[in-house]
Amino acid sequence: MSDFAELKQQVDAFAAEREWERFHTPKNLAMSVAIEAAELMEIFQWLTPEQAADVMNDPQKVRDIKGEIADVLLYLVRLSSVLGIDPIEAGLAKVEENRSRTWDF
Amino acid sequence: MSDFAELKQQVDAFAAEREWERFHTPKNLAMSVAIEAAELMEIFQWLTPEQAADVMNDPQKVRDIKGEIADVLLYLVRLSSVLGIDPIEAGLAKVEENRSRTWDF
Amino acid sequence: MSDFAELKQQVDAFAAEREWERFHTPKNLAMSVAIEAAELMEIFQWLTPEQAADVMNDPQKVRDIKGEIADVLLYLVRLSSVLGIDPIEAGLAKVEENRSRTWDF
Amino acid sequence: MSDFAELKQQVDAFAAEREWERFHTPKNLAMSVAIEAAELMEIFQWLTPEQAADVMNDPQKVRDIKGEIADVLLYLVRLSSVLGIDPIEAGLAKVEENRSRTWDF
Repeated sequence: MSDFAELKQQVDAFAAEREWERFHTPKNLAMSVAIEAAELMEIFQWLTPEQAADVMNDPQKVRDIKGEIADVLLYLVRLSSVLGIDPIEAGLAKVEENRSRTWDF
Repeated sequence: MSDFAELKQQVDAFAAEREWERFHTPKNLAMSVAIEAAELMEIFQWLTPEQAADVMNDPQKVRDIKGEIADVLLYLVRLSSVLGIDPIEAGLAKVEENRSRTWDF
Repeated sequence: MSDFAELKQQVDAFAAEREWERFHTPKNLAMSVAIEAAELMEIFQWLTPEQAADVMNDPQKVRDIKGEIADVLLYLVRLSSVLGIDPIEAGLAKVEENRSRTWDF
Repeated sequence: MSDFAELKQQVDAFAAEREWERFHTPKNLAMSVAIEAAELMEIFQWLTPEQAADVMNDPQKVRDIKGEIADVLLYLVRLSSVLGIDPIEAGLAKVEENRSRTWDF
């Protein structure tokens, strides 16, 4: 099992254990992705370019960033799972599509 | 190579081809994750619970959702790459941490 | 009537005319504020500092920015109205509170 | 002076006192609006419809909501001020524009 498949399995199992399925509607999960994305952004909000460049040398910041990247990913994986979408496959298809365009991810 | 490693490689190669590295600061990429997350959320914004439950039966909505999930993931993978973080590993660590807590992903 | 009271009245009247009250739950309106805030942010996303400083000299950008600031404000005013909160009063109280703190709005 | 003009004056004076002008670029302030909007949304994230309808009867929730509405408004007013935009005027113009359209704020 790939690491990604392992992550998906863990996320779904955890939601089932906690009996969170009824809260995990696509709308609520999409909100969660957006809320966690804002928390990730907040870490970088007031940093100067120098501080931002140095952020990986600050162990507390590294922990915070890993935690917020994880939160966005967990909710994105869970949303994909609830909808029956493979996010990696969707991502690879999008890169392919972007290659044929002039601008933007 | 796992699908996830393949995705990371493609995302980084694409950024290099387009010479986007100088735009891809952590702060800008974190903004991109948040902007794409809002676009994902927007798809579900005004749906009734019935429409939301039926969303995967609408081929246009399925395309839109896959496209926005992909965009969030691509920017999250790219941000992780720029920072030298493995997002799957961070995600697995977070699930582990959450198992020892009472509430919340 | 102050300009702000006029805006509140117009926003509420418009929602009533369109019969949007049943969609305008606090949760949905808070989502709308966040979605419009992301669209506002998107205008500035990839601008260099030079372009950003010059943004008010570009008539199209000025129109876009005014339009997105308006959208955030309209949904914030509507949410406040639905909840029976006076946002100007809340804002003035927050500035007062912030004056007694060391950091942050 | 209207309440809104008073709020704008207070917000600008407070930024000047703290010497935050150099941090208050349009891009940073637009990020702040989005971050605060996500915090506002978070209050409603996991509430059931019943809890959401009852939210104004919970004094702690009322305080939280007023605080977050204020934060979004303060950054929106500050951004408008930095750009020389009158947000109330922009809001009134947008309602006018929306009256001539079929759908959406």
